[in-house]
Amino acid sequence: MKRISIGLLGLGNIGAGTYKVLEQNRTHIEATTGLDLRITRILELDQERDRGFTVPPGVFTEDPSAIFDDPDIDIVVELIGGIEPATSFMASAMKGGKSVVSANKAAIAENYELLTETAASSGVGFRFEASVGGGIPLIGAITEHLCANEYTEMHGILNGTTNYILTKMSEQGLPYDDVLKEAQELGFAEADPTGDVKGEDVANKLSILMSLVFGKRVRPEDIPTRGITRITPEDFREAAENGCVIKLLASAFRAPDGTCECFVQPSWLNKTHPLAEVRNEYNALLIRGNAVDDLVFYGKGAGPFPTASAVLGDVIAIARRL
Amino acid sequence: MKRISIGLLGLGNIGAGTYKVLEQNRTHIEATTGLDLRITRILELDQERDRGFTVPPGVFTEDPSAIFDDPDIDIVVELIGGIEPATSFMASAMKGGKSVVSANKAAIAENYELLTETAASSGVGFRFEASVGGGIPLIGAITEHLCANEYTEMHGILNGTTNYILTKMSEQGLPYDDVLKEAQELGFAEADPTGDVKGEDVANKLSILMSLVFGKRVRPEDIPTRGITRITPEDFREAAENGCVIKLLASAFRAPDGTCECFVQPSWLNKTHPLAEVRNEYNALLIRGNAVDDLVFYGKGAGPFPTASAVLGDVIAIARRL
Repeated sequence: MKRISIGLLGLGNIGAGTYKVLEQNRTHIEATTGLDLRITRILELDQERDRGFTVPPGVFTEDPSAIFDDPDIDIVVELIGGIEPATSFMASAMKGGKSVVSANKAAIAENYELLTETAASSGVGFRFEASVGGGIPLIGAITEHLCANEYTEMHGILNGTTNYILTKMSEQGLPYDDVLKEAQELGFAEADPTGDVKGEDVANKLSILMSLVFGKRVRPEDIPTRGITRITPEDFREAAENGCVIKLLASAFRAPDGTCECFVQPSWLNKTHPLAEVRNEYNALLIRGNAVDDLVFYGKGAGPFPTASAVLGDVIAIARRL
Repeated sequence: MKRISIGLLGLGNIGAGTYKVLEQNRTHIEATTGLDLRITRILELDQERDRGFTVPPGVFTEDPSAIFDDPDIDIVVELIGGIEPATSFMASAMKGGKSVVSANKAAIAENYELLTETAASSGVGFRFEASVGGGIPLIGAITEHLCANEYTEMHGILNGTTNYILTKMSEQGLPYDDVLKEAQELGFAEADPTGDVKGEDVANKLSILMSLVFGKRVRPEDIPTRGITRITPEDFREAAENGCVIKLLASAFRAPDGTCECFVQPSWLNKTHPLAEVRNEYNALLIRGNAVDDLVFYGKGAGPFPTASAVLGDVIAIARRL
């Protein structure tokens, strides 16, 4: 059994979900991978909150350097979100020789070169499957199993909040404001939904995918982005009369000469399109490779447990190579 | 650039597709992986057939030992199909220290222990993504990115021929024999379709998945299997009256006590089920993990180029670790 020590940054919803899944599936993970994964330090200010499990004494810390300077820690898992201090924390961990796993789309989209180059120059692993599509293993498939393909096109439904709102508007004929309010009450939308409904969250994810799929760095603020805030029930009626539904799509194309374009916008999809039936909080990506043709990946794009699945998959991938 | 020498067993449709995709995407693969993949020997008796490309002099051989005994060959790609001599060839290559990539579901389902144990005892890689779901990266996702999950259930449409026939029967109301004949004329069914329509091909794939998903070895002949040969237009009408379609499903369940069951049979699916809209020659797998919940993977489950995508993905995965 190979023992791997993990320093966890952040024990919010995603961090707590990751902790729980690791404990719940520990026997399974040990049996199938031969890895003994231990969260030995957790950076978190809120140490009293009831998360449904007890963190052993001495694991919590309020001092980041207690993790970055701990020679026993192999992998740092960054789940605090936001651009800073997350980016600085990840870079510090890498420079200290620790591999990094992150679910942080905002920090990675904003600082892609810094983080990937720091990981490379430090000789450490850096994986971020959970940053796009939650539990759906998109990044692994694109960068590993499908990497013999040249990709020509992709279309993604990459935000559960907006897809939930559009699904309810479409199926119930209700106006945007009513559905948003219901989504907030049910926990499918945040109290401040701006980043979701204006498309910024999707632009962050598309920015990451552009680097991985087409090798093109496009900053999120340079992606033409339109959200869903001005969509009306009339828009859905018009789409339906034309045999279509409306989805907030992240789309990207690569022309034969290598030029790429990408955008985020509410788009009509024919009802027979493979993404048309992706309802509620689900996410999906359609990607076209020149050998494999069209592939669609579908699943839960958010939530503590699906995200934990991706985070722990990355941790295991790095741990296997340590 | 790391140079990797490949010995290819078989230059039929899949072998030729793999050769073509490697040549077509060579620049892309070199740029993104740093690997210079070279097919240096090809075992094939039919060396005169016009495949649309020219094999350089000295690459063809009729002698398997010319590949197994060649110290320069790193990876053997087995694409001859059938249980023997494919199994013996793979085992010989492994014992000679060569990693093996295969698309051969029949040989792997029949000889799973022999092949995986020979690979392990020889310290070589053994990958077979293309054996289940063609170009869809199912095995990689299940064994790598999702491996923190305990799986509870899966349902697959894993045979393009039968799904094509069922789709046409469903949508056109035609009897089985007429649709089979049309499928044969269009190349979606073989001249002898027995292995497909009786469900044996799906049972082979489900046998492989049972080992990977549930860690349970179930020989294909021990999987309760019913094919599609006795399905009638009346069956489709009855299903439609109940809001359902009929699909040939490979299904497997794991109970909380660890016992598993699996079977292959034509099954009713509610029209809103994520697999109900998988039409014609497409394949899909729904798998449920205890962290990630339901995931669906959809794409082309056969054909030279999708299969080549999976084969080359496996070659690259092994080559990166050599």
